[in-house]
Amino acid sequence: MFVAAVLLSDVEAGRSLVFPEETASSLVELTPAKPLSLDAFTLCLRFATELKGKREVILFAYRTQYFDELNVWRETDGRLSLYLSGPGAFFEVPELGPLANHVCLTWESLTGRTTMYVNGRSSASKIYQRGHRVRPGGKVILGQDPDNFLGDFQAEQSFVGEIFGVNMWDHVLPSVAIQLLSTGEDFSDANVLDWATVTIIPTGSVVEFQKRSLDLKPTTHALF
Amino acid sequence: MFVAAVLLSDVEAGRSLVFPEETASSLVELTPAKPLSLDAFTLCLRFATELKGKREVILFAYRTQYFDELNVWRETDGRLSLYLSGPGAFFEVPELGPLANHVCLTWESLTGRTTMYVNGRSSASKIYQRGHRVRPGGKVILGQDPDNFLGDFQAEQSFVGEIFGVNMWDHVLPSVAIQLLSTGEDFSDANVLDWATVTIIPTGSVVEFQKRSLDLKPTTHALF
Amino acid sequence: MFVAAVLLSDVEAGRSLVFPEETASSLVELTPAKPLSLDAFTLCLRFATELKGKREVILFAYRTQYFDELNVWRETDGRLSLYLSGPGAFFEVPELGPLANHVCLTWESLTGRTTMYVNGRSSASKIYQRGHRVRPGGKVILGQDPDNFLGDFQAEQSFVGEIFGVNMWDHVLPSVAIQLLSTGEDFSDANVLDWATVTIIPTGSVVEFQKRSLDLKPTTHALF
Repeated sequence: MFVAAVLLSDVEAGRSLVFPEETASSLVELTPAKPLSLDAFTLCLRFATELKGKREVILFAYRTQYFDELNVWRETDGRLSLYLSGPGAFFEVPELGPLANHVCLTWESLTGRTTMYVNGRSSASKIYQRGHRVRPGGKVILGQDPDNFLGDFQAEQSFVGEIFGVNMWDHVLPSVAIQLLSTGEDFSDANVLDWATVTIIPTGSVVEFQKRSLDLKPTTHALF
Repeated sequence: MFVAAVLLSDVEAGRSLVFPEETASSLVELTPAKPLSLDAFTLCLRFATELKGKREVILFAYRTQYFDELNVWRETDGRLSLYLSGPGAFFEVPELGPLANHVCLTWESLTGRTTMYVNGRSSASKIYQRGHRVRPGGKVILGQDPDNFLGDFQAEQSFVGEIFGVNMWDHVLPSVAIQLLSTGEDFSDANVLDWATVTIIPTGSVVEFQKRSLDLKPTTHALF
Repeated sequence: MFVAAVLLSDVEAGRSLVFPEETASSLVELTPAKPLSLDAFTLCLRFATELKGKREVILFAYRTQYFDELNVWRETDGRLSLYLSGPGAFFEVPELGPLANHVCLTWESLTGRTTMYVNGRSSASKIYQRGHRVRPGGKVILGQDPDNFLGDFQAEQSFVGEIFGVNMWDHVLPSVAIQLLSTGEDFSDANVLDWATVTIIPTGSVVEFQKRSLDLKPTTHALF
């Protein structure tokens, strides 16, 4: 009985952001724990959206003054994509549907290897932007795609729905760790963006909720 | 090996209601353990139906003298919906198909937040009927939509198929608890409607079955 | 907490091969631990590919001088197939999609029974090549289909994407073992091809990565 309780005890605990409508102004800025000067990263987030059809959806944006340093999109054709200051890498994924999905993305400069994970299952890896480096000094934004430094948003690219569990590491997590994260394990502190502690600055109609976690007594854990 | 056995040991145990045909008369009344005077709730149920195409299907109805206080539907377009005495909140979900699905719905007056869960996966939350209160003094009905106080049923809105595991709480369960419920864990006593003990008053051609649970010996559990 | 860690601790750990593009030259040769003189076998591998539409995809090839001794394909119609020196056995499977799938295949000469497994779920078994024997002296190839002894490759049959976890046994594993393998358990040393130790000889644009495993301390395992 206690197994499942423990396996899932941290799933979706913590804060959650609801973007109730399509706008060109509602957004959330996240304050990273350290500058995004990165030669590797793992980025994970959970989202649920009813947006469908031929529409781009911004999932994550890190913008410096002149560059889309690190953007993640759901493309009009349903693929997920990563842009690091230039043409993107594209990943075929199953249709994501309207319920919450766990999406992770890894990249490392040394080999250029980048891999997308949906609900713990890996895509075929791609070779992308080998030798590149993500530059510090920008802003991390959810909900909008900044076409210049924190402005020039387009409603038809905005995120509508719910986002939570946004975590980022400055290294590539092993795939088994990402599988565990997808089932709700929270064994590893994210050192760039930690959803449990990151400062969130909302603008516009976005609503922040506090999700409750299961209050399992320590004695339950001790049964193992 | 024993993990899966334990995880699934309570799935679908207990009573089950079969509505064998489309009628305007077959229904079941459930007697709540306390009045439905609610500023928050979690409602869960499992159902399997072969109804398809453009047809409304009533999943749960709580009717007071003048209001559809709390109705849950599968809409003609496949969405699930919640009505609290007025226009509804609508949730996009994957096509539910003919096999049994576990559906839960949470709502709280304080924030208006309402979330639909299908087989443990959450929808994007909606803001709905903030500040509202579900009123006591009505009847809980499965199988029919009462357009007045327990009457005026329409066969083409009736439920056909099997319903079971109807449980209701007077508060919002954390999402991790709902995930556990969807896998068959039964860790938490529902305090408004408890399927294990609720009095069921059937009318018409509805049939009540007793499902058997997996007979796990206590010694199996002790292996943990 | 520790249950999932152990269940999944070996999933996808170890080496991984990325075939970034369609070619008639990129391939990997695997050096078996013993000759493939086989009257039974279990072959497992994981792969992710974005190849779709009406295109054959070679998944595994074992070629002797005059025969395609043991080839596994994804056929143009999406079925998986096994060829042992002659017409093939075909298996209907769910659409595999672009994310990683775990595929296993068992065959034994005595009964001719052959079964395909996708992510631990078994196909209907087929009777195929009863009394046959896989002959030694060939080469094991990933990425290309050799139409003669290590040559005459066709780009439009090549594998594009990522392959890993290629393991082969000289006997039929029980289905429960294959289910465990699909979830990442690595309880059994493969005695013909062992992905953890097999010598890999790459040719062309194929890239070999080292996947990291979760660094779980032995004391964690000891909690069981």
